[in-house]
Order: sequence, then structure tokens, then C-alpha cells
Amino acid sequence: MDLQKYLLKQQQYIESALQEVLPQIEGPTAQLLKAMRYSVFAGGKRLRPILMLAACEAVGGESQQALKSACALEMIHTYSLIHDDLPAMDDDNFRRGVPTNHKVFGDAIAILAGDGLLTEAFCLLSQPDQAFGAQTQLQIINIAATASGWNGMVGGQVADMVAEGQDNSIATVDFIHKHKTGALILASLQIGALCGGSNPEQLKHISDFGHSAGLAFQIADDLLDIESSQEQLGKDIGRDQQRGKATYPAVAGVDESHRRAEQLHAQAITQLDSFGDAAEPLRQISAYIINRKQ
Amino acid sequence: MDLQKYLLKQQQYIESALQEVLPQIEGPTAQLLKAMRYSVFAGGKRLRPILMLAACEAVGGESQQALKSACALEMIHTYSLIHDDLPAMDDDNFRRGVPTNHKVFGDAIAILAGDGLLTEAFCLLSQPDQAFGAQTQLQIINIAATASGWNGMVGGQVADMVAEGQDNSIATVDFIHKHKTGALILASLQIGALCGGSNPEQLKHISDFGHSAGLAFQIADDLLDIESSQEQLGKDIGRDQQRGKATYPAVAGVDESHRRAEQLHAQAITQLDSFGDAAEPLRQISAYIINRKQ
Repeated sequence: MDLQKYLLKQQQYIESALQEVLPQIEGPTAQLLKAMRYSVFAGGKRLRPILMLAACEAVGGESQQALKSACALEMIHTYSLIHDDLPAMDDDNFRRGVPTNHKVFGDAIAILAGDGLLTEAFCLLSQPDQAFGAQTQLQIINIAATASGWNGMVGGQVADMVAEGQDNSIATVDFIHKHKTGALILASLQIGALCGGSNPEQLKHISDFGHSAGLAFQIADDLLDIESSQEQLGKDIGRDQQRGKATYPAVAGVDESHRRAEQLHAQAITQLDSFGDAAEPLRQISAYIINRKQ
Repeated sequence: MDLQKYLLKQQQYIESALQEVLPQIEGPTAQLLKAMRYSVFAGGKRLRPILMLAACEAVGGESQQALKSACALEMIHTYSLIHDDLPAMDDDNFRRGVPTNHKVFGDAIAILAGDGLLTEAFCLLSQPDQAFGAQTQLQIINIAATASGWNGMVGGQVADMVAEGQDNSIATVDFIHKHKTGALILASLQIGALCGGSNPEQLKHISDFGHSAGLAFQIADDLLDIESSQEQLGKDIGRDQQRGKATYPAVAGVDESHRRAEQLHAQAITQLDSFGDAAEPLRQISAYIINRKQ
């Protein structure tokens, strides 16, 4: 398969689904929707939804079954970026090559746009017209909420802040990565598998794949902040080091970080053996994750 | 019935349920949980959960059936207050008689504590051990998310900001109140009824009660900002006027506001006729809402 073509096709598929679920409206809340849409359509890679659709197909489902959940997880991801970029947090000016939400709409609207996207994700996930049973749908909502909350992404964000400027261990960095980024990537894969009607054994393999691939993704992200350029990345680079962030390269060095990302990728794809050709997209995305330049 | 005793009993009941669902933990995310708990246990009236339990009982259910959902809605309410108080938003120093979350924990943790509470609400609402069926549970989640999002509370917040300092109509103020406060009060009542196993006719009556009571609550709240003292209210007063907020007294005057609140209360309790004694708490809470001093 041609991964670039595949990614482009999936991105377009998700793009049009997001357009459908996030309307442009008039009236007193027009500015809110505009801000929500601004960040959702600011050119993201759509990695989480793409992984979700791929996991759905890997277990034998149709990607359409996971499309609504995929939009929901992309909204959760986008909300986290908006809040993360705020002056009170990382104070970033650029994201995905364009000014950050608060730079365009102001801090208040940016906070509320994030709140709106997080909440809208749960509106979507709880809509009654899903292809699978209500029990599975509840399980999906619980996975999404747990992965996003205090014991997942938000917790990782706080741990990341607490660790800033400290002399950190690899265990601390692993905790941060596992929660801040890994949890939502893992959840995307698990939800994809559930949407596709996976059996418990398949779900276990997809989860193990997700643990490794999620960590590999964040290590690669840390490396990009050092090795990429602002042009390639679409956001300020070298910021992690400036801030004394707890990153894998900072505690283990650049070479060891590359080695660890490779190792995690190898571990990840081993989990996909039983899926055969249906998991080829997941295999190639896992390789892409550690070799990407943006 | 003695309303004060009833409210106290229900508050304690909800208080201990919240203690159970929101743990104190150690480790890198300890500060986050501390901040989340700080605002949840800062002495709120617990109006939304109390209304939920009362609606559950009005339709013939046991209040215990709605307890977990009641905690979830109180978390959503609390998150909205934390974000609302931020310097980028209303910049308030006091809430419920104590310093606001960001005054104690800083802006970054306050934003994340809000995010964490909103997300945790959906963790709770999607837990598998509820007394009712999965379909009802999904409906509850959808009601909670819709009432909290861009077409509910968050939308009302934005409309409120946009209206600040403008020459506003009663229609605008109604829109703001209906979305910013009314939606979550209405949702609390609807969810309570659903937890209690209401039939569609009961749900309709409870919803109509909620529309009127929710609006009455916000008008009373606007009046308190004018007529109460900081001591009684536990937060800065007169702030609405300073900021040129779109409030009912600002567009219709104080007397007309009292009259309208009374009228809404009267409309609200008419909806409860068919419930008999089981709805006595709802009747009395509705009266309390428009006569409270804090």
C-alpha cells in the first residue's frame, strides 16, 4: 500500500465528517463556533482518527462504523491543544502553521472553544444512531472520558508542568508521555476496535499495540522539537529545551531516544501478527510515526 | 415539610457521594486532584444535584438511583464556575466565600482542574453499574453534554460576553439565561426524572417545570448581585453592573424582575400538579429559588 495516498484519503474522509458534525451558525454564539472550527480545521494530521479507523478495519469492521467516534476524539485532541497553547499554559503563538486560537480570538473565547469541543465530543459519542449496541457505546464513552481526564491526558498535562525545570527520571518522562499523549492514542485504537466489533483477544492486541505506538509517538515528537525546523513543524521549535521540559531526549539523549522509538515500534507491530493484511495500515502508520518530519 | 432540614440532608447526602467519587491521590497529579476537590468542596448550595434527586423522587424513583448523575452534574457546574472566574473571563476573586480556584492554584492548574471536572463527569455518567438500562444512560449523557456545550452553557457564556456593555433586549437576556444557567438546571431535572424511571408525560411536565424554574433562578441571581451583600453572597457583588452585563434588572428594572420571577415560579409549580405530594420538595425549592438571600 502507498501510505501517503492512504493518509490523504483518510484525512479527507475525516475532514468532511468533521465539517458535517461541526456546523457554522449565526447568532450570539457564532463567534464560539467559529473559534471551535478554526482550530479543528487548522490542518491537523488527524492521526488519532486515522488510527481509530485503521483499528476498526484491522478487526474486520468498516471504517464508517468508527467515523463519528473518530470525529469526537479529534475534537478532544483539538481542545487539549487550544488549552495547552494558552498564555497561562505553554503560551504558544503558532500551531499547525497558523496563529494559535487565543492569538486570533482572545483568551476567553479560546478557553470556551476548548470547553465547547470537549463537550461536543461527548454529544457525538452519545448520539443514539450508532451502528453498535448501547453497552458498547457506553464502554466507548467511558474509555474516551477516562483517557482524557485526571488519570489520562489532563493528568499528564499537570505532571508535565510540575516536572518543568526539574531533574527528571525516565520514569517521570514515561508517566508524562503515557498520560499526556499516550492515553488518547491508546483510546483511539481501542475505540476503533470496539466500533469494528472486536473480540476481547483482538482488543488486547490492539491495546498492546497502542501502548507502544503511543509512547513511540511522543518520543518522536520530543525529537522533532530538537531536529525539525519551524517551517517543517508549523510551530515554534526548541521550546521544550527553553522551558526545561521533561522530554525523552532531555533525560536519555538523542541517540538513545531514536533507539527507544525504534524498539517501541518493533514491539508494537509484533502485536499485529494475527490480523494479517487487515492491519497493514496500522503497521505502516507505526513506522511513519517514528520517521515523520512534522 | 421543613425545607431547610430537607436541603441540609440532601446536601450532606450529595457531599459524601462526591467525596467517594473524587479521591485524594498522591503522585504527579496530586495538585490537580487537590484543585478539583478545592472547588467542589468549597461550600456550594448543591442546587442542581438536589433538583435532580427531587425530580427522581417526584416521578416515583429512589434518590439513590440519581446519585451518581447528580455528582456528575455538580462537577460540570463547578468546572463552569472555575473557568468563569479566570482572569481571562470574569476575573473574580471570591466564590462561595473563599478565594477562587486560580487565586489559590494559579491559572494553569485552574484551567486544567476545570477540564478535569468536566471530563470526570462523563466518566461517572458512563460507568457501567447504573440502575437503569444502557439506552437511558446514553440519553442521560446526551442531555448532559448538550446542555453543557455550545448550544447550552458554553454558548450562553459566550453570548453573555458578547452582550457585555451593549444595549440589550429582553430577548437577548432570555437567550443568555436560558443557555448559561437554565440549560444545566433543566438537564438536572430531566436526568433526575429519567433516573427515576419517568414516563414521557412525566418527563414533559418536569421539563416544563425546569424551563420556568431555571429562568427564575437566573433572574433571582441577577437580583442578588444588586440586593445582597458580599457577606451574604460569598462573592463580590455589584459586579454585573460594573461590567455592563446583560441582566434582567438591567433591561427590565428591579421591580419587573421580581414580578417576572414570581410569575415563572407560579408557572413552574403548575406543571407539578399531577405528581401530588411526591413533588413537594420541587415546589418548595422553586419558591426558595426566588426568595433566597444567597
